[in-house]
Amino acid sequence: MAEKISRPKARLPRGFRDRTAGEIAAERRLIETIRGVYESYGFAPLETPAFEYTDALGKFLPDVDRPNEGVFSLQDDDAQWLSLRYDLTAPLARYVAENFQNLPKPFRRYQVGSVWRNEKPGPGRFREFTQFDADTVGSNSPAADAELLMMVCDALEALGLKRGEYVVKINSRKLLDALLGFLGLAGPSNAARRGIILRAVDKFDRVGPDGVSQLLTTGRKDESGDFTQGANLTSDQARIVMQFLGFSYDGQFKRTNEEMYFGPIGDFASAELKAIVDIVRESGFETDRISVDRTVIRGLDYYTGPVFEAQLTFPITNDAGETVVFGSVAGGGRYDDLVARFTGQQVPATGISIGVSRLLTALQSRGLAGDESPLVVVLPMDNSACAFKIAGDLRSAGIRCETFVGNKKFGDQLKYADKRGAALVVMEGEDERNADPPQVTLKDLKAGAEASKSVGTREEWVGARAGQTTVPRAVLVAEVQKLLKRGV
Amino acid sequence: MAEKISRPKARLPRGFRDRTAGEIAAERRLIETIRGVYESYGFAPLETPAFEYTDALGKFLPDVDRPNEGVFSLQDDDAQWLSLRYDLTAPLARYVAENFQNLPKPFRRYQVGSVWRNEKPGPGRFREFTQFDADTVGSNSPAADAELLMMVCDALEALGLKRGEYVVKINSRKLLDALLGFLGLAGPSNAARRGIILRAVDKFDRVGPDGVSQLLTTGRKDESGDFTQGANLTSDQARIVMQFLGFSYDGQFKRTNEEMYFGPIGDFASAELKAIVDIVRESGFETDRISVDRTVIRGLDYYTGPVFEAQLTFPITNDAGETVVFGSVAGGGRYDDLVARFTGQQVPATGISIGVSRLLTALQSRGLAGDESPLVVVLPMDNSACAFKIAGDLRSAGIRCETFVGNKKFGDQLKYADKRGAALVVMEGEDERNADPPQVTLKDLKAGAEASKSVGTREEWVGARAGQTTVPRAVLVAEVQKLLKRGV
Repeated sequence: MAEKISRPKARLPRGFRDRTAGEIAAERRLIETIRGVYESYGFAPLETPAFEYTDALGKFLPDVDRPNEGVFSLQDDDAQWLSLRYDLTAPLARYVAENFQNLPKPFRRYQVGSVWRNEKPGPGRFREFTQFDADTVGSNSPAADAELLMMVCDALEALGLKRGEYVVKINSRKLLDALLGFLGLAGPSNAARRGIILRAVDKFDRVGPDGVSQLLTTGRKDESGDFTQGANLTSDQARIVMQFLGFSYDGQFKRTNEEMYFGPIGDFASAELKAIVDIVRESGFETDRISVDRTVIRGLDYYTGPVFEAQLTFPITNDAGETVVFGSVAGGGRYDDLVARFTGQQVPATGISIGVSRLLTALQSRGLAGDESPLVVVLPMDNSACAFKIAGDLRSAGIRCETFVGNKKFGDQLKYADKRGAALVVMEGEDERNADPPQVTLKDLKAGAEASKSVGTREEWVGARAGQTTVPRAVLVAEVQKLLKRGV
Repeated sequence: MAEKISRPKARLPRGFRDRTAGEIAAERRLIETIRGVYESYGFAPLETPAFEYTDALGKFLPDVDRPNEGVFSLQDDDAQWLSLRYDLTAPLARYVAENFQNLPKPFRRYQVGSVWRNEKPGPGRFREFTQFDADTVGSNSPAADAELLMMVCDALEALGLKRGEYVVKINSRKLLDALLGFLGLAGPSNAARRGIILRAVDKFDRVGPDGVSQLLTTGRKDESGDFTQGANLTSDQARIVMQFLGFSYDGQFKRTNEEMYFGPIGDFASAELKAIVDIVRESGFETDRISVDRTVIRGLDYYTGPVFEAQLTFPITNDAGETVVFGSVAGGGRYDDLVARFTGQQVPATGISIGVSRLLTALQSRGLAGDESPLVVVLPMDNSACAFKIAGDLRSAGIRCETFVGNKKFGDQLKYADKRGAALVVMEGEDERNADPPQVTLKDLKAGAEASKSVGTREEWVGARAGQTTVPRAVLVAEVQKLLKRGV
């Protein structure tokens, strides 16, 4: 009896992606640039595993509308539940709680890596993506917050953004807390409702004042028809929140600059904010780089004081060709209670997280993502070893160079070089090798592209001669360098 | 009623690890060095996601003694099973099958990343670790294999290993297949038994000829008392296998250099091996770098022809202080059937995988893992902004520098600098700032370490003066550079 052959279909898992050379290289340059700035500030790298125990991760996902979802979890063979990390903050809290005694205080670390979200994927929205976090744990000094803000500015400029193309906004969550207390929404029984209000304010950049106002009261239907539950504030309460955000209402919302008074907690929060702002100003960071903005709230429940958000100020063309305001590329704040979840001991902490993929998209639209160095392909003709030797010589001179290692059909060799985007090909056949002195043939692929489409044999192609030159083998490296410099 | 407070215990998941600055930096240097060599050969990076569909991964784990284990799997919300990748080869096969039409042929890619094994953890054996793979898909030319071997040699030497400290061994799986056919063990019904024999031979470096002989026949009990099932060969069959591996038996095993004849498949395998060896020899790679060794088999079932293994030749001291033969740091071979699993179409492929953590351990024992640049810590005394300015000046000069952002207690500031391993601390108090010209104080921490243990105030400590100097603020950067150069 013949065995039945059942073949799996080769398919990428839903919501995940493969990434190839250009994108990988661009992300790597971005990460190495940020790493360089963060390390120069003395932040030390930390790598935690992909998994944490589910109970240790807790439920700090931004999407608390679906509290039981959002995480990839599985049961270990000792019956404990494991989850893939959904951010880099929860693992940091676990690490600090576990190693507190042995850490320098304050403990300043950065971590860059993949995080996983078990969410509905969408265009540009993947279930695995990269974050780059920096956090300072064990200091309640405003210097710790100020340092993070300045460091992010330096990182963005190191990536090529100009002064004025970005701004790091700062606000205090305590100010909003004071407001909510004023509205009678303090205490654990109002926690869920406060969460809805936080997320409503957090959506300001996307939905504008009308949208926030709807989310504060009866709820809001978005363009796709999806309905988001509102916080059911009275119209008076909602008006006060909008006033806090800097808006008055007379048939439509208008920006004002009114100051509100929220009692002693408000004073404390203002002083905390002022202390941070004073340090950055004295250090030479003016409002064009770091500025206070009351609509910056950050959706996460765990922030307890100052919150930060880095925004790009220039319009960006998205994949659909539309011009959009890009918004946030980094966010963070103070979260003094996260370690206390484990130990009961409150440890002050502050951090900021860069959304690497988002930032990369923005840099690419600005032409700041960089290029690969040009590639030379050596076609082996009749002798692989000779081709390897040529490639080795070019590599020794720092030239990115590869040898075709497939079949001997010249047409396939050329097609390959073309598909790889080679700037130059190098060939050394028997004739060239036996010449006196020995020769090699160089060919600019772009110049020869038209000709190469129709040729099948090497002879036809060499006959075309477009962008082609034969030089002594002894001066090969210098000739290739000269051609690449000329921008072949 | 008071809410019950239940706190999770902060604990690293079993079999996983946190990694800190020194190890991360060393691994990064290692990866960047290999990446540099592989990219200079024109291999392009690829990144596949952490997850693959379970059916697409297949069952190619080395530990087929437990075929249903070894992988972390979970069910997606559309009922499909997902698994974390356990190597980088299976995802490559999926990627190639899915994108075959659009790839250059041959397709040469490298991938570096985490892989996950749901296995019993042990000392130095983790459930998440890093692999660095390079593969050429779509070429059956011996040049493709030869290139991988030479590239691995170049990578190991770029990492600082000297000629003679490593050797890349090569063999053909087809030779062993020919032998097994000779012994009557061809065909699907003998697949499981062939697998046991392959794994037995693969363990040669660890268990020696006696151990292999036991595993070929009745089985073997290891030092821990664990028993591994044998292949139940007759003693005649086992003797022939041992003879193939180069051993005769007269009460004990002895190395011989006898050649065996295995018929046409053996001839073909020998010719295949010879073609690869010819290319590397002509390219200047002699037996001290690349050599044929019949005991190299690689345990994986999917290899179909030449197999490779890079070994270190020097003894290494392990964590327990014992001198051990380190063995393999990379392995690979030809696996022409992996893409056919999906498409039915056989696509020739060859690859080699470096075990990053193992190689790093070896390099560290050789002192080749590199050092971090020295760190300067600025103690803010009474003014964070001034400290940030000093740190900024030093950073602009390329000096790794950080500012203490914790509390104002001088003792804590010093302890911090000490714990961070700082080479130098810089201080600028009110006195220094108001001096004419303004001053800063520099202190070599090592020289001052003894004194600092007993001091509580800055004045006491400054009084000690060990390794301490005060210089004009204007020449700070030059002074720090001078001190660091002197190897503070």
